[in-house]
Amino acid sequence: MKKNAFYAQSGGVTSVINATAYGVIDEARKSNKIGKIYAGKNGILGALRENLIDTSKEPKTFIDSLQYRPGGVFGSCRYKLKDFDTNKKEYLRLMEVFKAHNIGYFFYNGGNDSADTAFKVAQISKKLGYPLNCIAIPKTVDNDLAITDNCPGFGSVAKYVVTSTIEAALDVESMAETSTKVFILEVMGRHAGWIAASSSIAQESHPGAPDIILLPEIIFNQPKFLKKVKEVIDSKGFCVIVASEGLKNTSGKFVSESGLKDAFGHSQLGGVAPYLANLISQKTKLKNHWAVADYLQRSASHVSSEIDRKQAIKVGREAVKYALQGKTSVMPIIKRLQDSPYRWKVEAAALSKIANVEKVLPKSFISKDGFGITDKGKKYFKPLIGGQNKEMKQNARYLKPKCIMVAKKLSAWR
Amino acid sequence: MKKNAFYAQSGGVTSVINATAYGVIDEARKSNKIGKIYAGKNGILGALRENLIDTSKEPKTFIDSLQYRPGGVFGSCRYKLKDFDTNKKEYLRLMEVFKAHNIGYFFYNGGNDSADTAFKVAQISKKLGYPLNCIAIPKTVDNDLAITDNCPGFGSVAKYVVTSTIEAALDVESMAETSTKVFILEVMGRHAGWIAASSSIAQESHPGAPDIILLPEIIFNQPKFLKKVKEVIDSKGFCVIVASEGLKNTSGKFVSESGLKDAFGHSQLGGVAPYLANLISQKTKLKNHWAVADYLQRSASHVSSEIDRKQAIKVGREAVKYALQGKTSVMPIIKRLQDSPYRWKVEAAALSKIANVEKVLPKSFISKDGFGITDKGKKYFKPLIGGQNKEMKQNARYLKPKCIMVAKKLSAWR
Repeated sequence: MKKNAFYAQSGGVTSVINATAYGVIDEARKSNKIGKIYAGKNGILGALRENLIDTSKEPKTFIDSLQYRPGGVFGSCRYKLKDFDTNKKEYLRLMEVFKAHNIGYFFYNGGNDSADTAFKVAQISKKLGYPLNCIAIPKTVDNDLAITDNCPGFGSVAKYVVTSTIEAALDVESMAETSTKVFILEVMGRHAGWIAASSSIAQESHPGAPDIILLPEIIFNQPKFLKKVKEVIDSKGFCVIVASEGLKNTSGKFVSESGLKDAFGHSQLGGVAPYLANLISQKTKLKNHWAVADYLQRSASHVSSEIDRKQAIKVGREAVKYALQGKTSVMPIIKRLQDSPYRWKVEAAALSKIANVEKVLPKSFISKDGFGITDKGKKYFKPLIGGQNKEMKQNARYLKPKCIMVAKKLSAWR
Repeated sequence: MKKNAFYAQSGGVTSVINATAYGVIDEARKSNKIGKIYAGKNGILGALRENLIDTSKEPKTFIDSLQYRPGGVFGSCRYKLKDFDTNKKEYLRLMEVFKAHNIGYFFYNGGNDSADTAFKVAQISKKLGYPLNCIAIPKTVDNDLAITDNCPGFGSVAKYVVTSTIEAALDVESMAETSTKVFILEVMGRHAGWIAASSSIAQESHPGAPDIILLPEIIFNQPKFLKKVKEVIDSKGFCVIVASEGLKNTSGKFVSESGLKDAFGHSQLGGVAPYLANLISQKTKLKNHWAVADYLQRSASHVSSEIDRKQAIKVGREAVKYALQGKTSVMPIIKRLQDSPYRWKVEAAALSKIANVEKVLPKSFISKDGFGITDKGKKYFKPLIGGQNKEMKQNARYLKPKCIMVAKKLSAWR
């Protein structure tokens, strides 16, 4: 009798996590070696509560549509399993549910914490003698997983941020003469500045924004920042800033701390952009506008990166192959073979090296003054946002006008 | 000798104002009846300062690209001409510049204030005996111009807001079990709730968001709002709110007033979303996230409405035709002929009826409880967001899963 599979989505969702679900389900259906794929309702909670969605009841058209659907279609959760010794009950329950439903494959789609969950489940199943192939599948907009070159979900956020930065910069450029001179976009990234850093790719389009990138890796230095803003305004008349939500001050605290924490104990952030806007208003009187992208950036499937979507599907398919090959306690990771033209492949990596490890932005990606990204960094980011949608032909769209002025015939006004 | 034309962009820009510039320039070039089209550098200031961009020096490929380019390519301005009696000097200067450059056609692309400027220029040119055909061309994301059924620029913002609301709602739906339960999106709209109201079209897609729409037309009632949030959470587990930046409290003040004012004396707003988030955190403890779209919404040409773009081009072309027909002091406005299938035409309306008039959301568009939009309102909004880009096939993308649960075999967990 064929074993069934359990698949679940965990942590903050992305615009392509459902593309991974599609990869897993489609590959499992095609393999003919797996019975049913049960999706956990709200991640691992679905297993604990025995809330299993029978994906075989969903039509192919629906499963196919998952390639383009934002959010986590089966529900996600922020729920971290404790150590076996601390909470044996949970692990025993998981094994009980898996046994009751003849589940032999465990696919957990998430970030650091989820890799840790999959790793623990693999260890415990071995300990308890229950045969279970445990595969963690990478997903995180934060791009902070170890070993893998990049994480599915990240490329699409990067594309959203690059697109939005160019568009807003063109807006501010046209308003700057008599109105808004500074625009601030706040993006996600608690401890690692990958998302903010990716906005550097927008600099390749006219009007060359962002002018300042604020990363959690670089302590926020108020006087240096305000000096830089003034320099940019003096030289080009307007200034576009992309700021990471996790920006920290000299005492190591988040610049804007709301005081709330999530189930993993992470601080709940937001409000760096209004903080900076307030600072600029008070210290420079420059008129400014600010935006906080929040969930819009990670759910924007209408502007997803095609490379990201392909990789999200591929890691789902590979996960199924690994499980059928008898692998356990591994994650399909993305290995970059070449920057340009971009080439990549997927291979298996041990969860022991991934669980709970957080990969920050390499120092070599950050420019000397701390406000920009080096060419090395840009080389890394560029291919990940690949795959413009048809309406987004950047080069054709964002041309700089020649603006050849008509010779003046009159004396100056005022 | 052919007369030249002056074209300029004014006020807050949109993602399709350059499509109008394309319409004007392309139509004028084709007509063979207009000499050169001079674009004012930064709106009317370009005329006052004699900063005229010679658009004949821009290649056709560039002019064609304007159909898809956000921002205001020739620079915009927030600069309101005073009355003739108060500041005669400015008007005399305009006539001097127009005369010096043989300008016989004046096209001003903007909102209420710009219609007023075009109206005044038309009156003064007549008074001073300088022959000038003055045409105001509509543009505003606020959709608050009188006479016209809708304003170019609005449909694209509406499409952005509808798209973002659906995407973010799918995200929140998947997180709500253990994490974020309330999501707030702040959109533009100082005194009229057109943009916030357009988000109601998102309700036609799964998961039926937004649940609450907060309009400047309806005084914010805190207890009633919090009660509604709780009701929504109790019934579906999560709550999506779209709030207008111009939300006012019982004393008639903006809920979130930053104290800054722009050149027209308008209050500079922002921060309704964090205000509401804070309120919800304090009064209900429900975990929430918030986004402020700000300039991203009005510059998002990557997700522009095709209808909006077509109308923006058309009003530009018609403006040129009117001027060549000898019309003056008029605006090409959009007349709706039919809701579905949507049919519309452009016709001329007198500026005297448009200048400085602000059209608010009709009462008949607002639901009884003040938190939603009636079917009549939805019928109005729906065609304006028409024209999905290919990656945005809503119906295929946002399907609701059947979620047929596997029969439980074990006793309940915990």
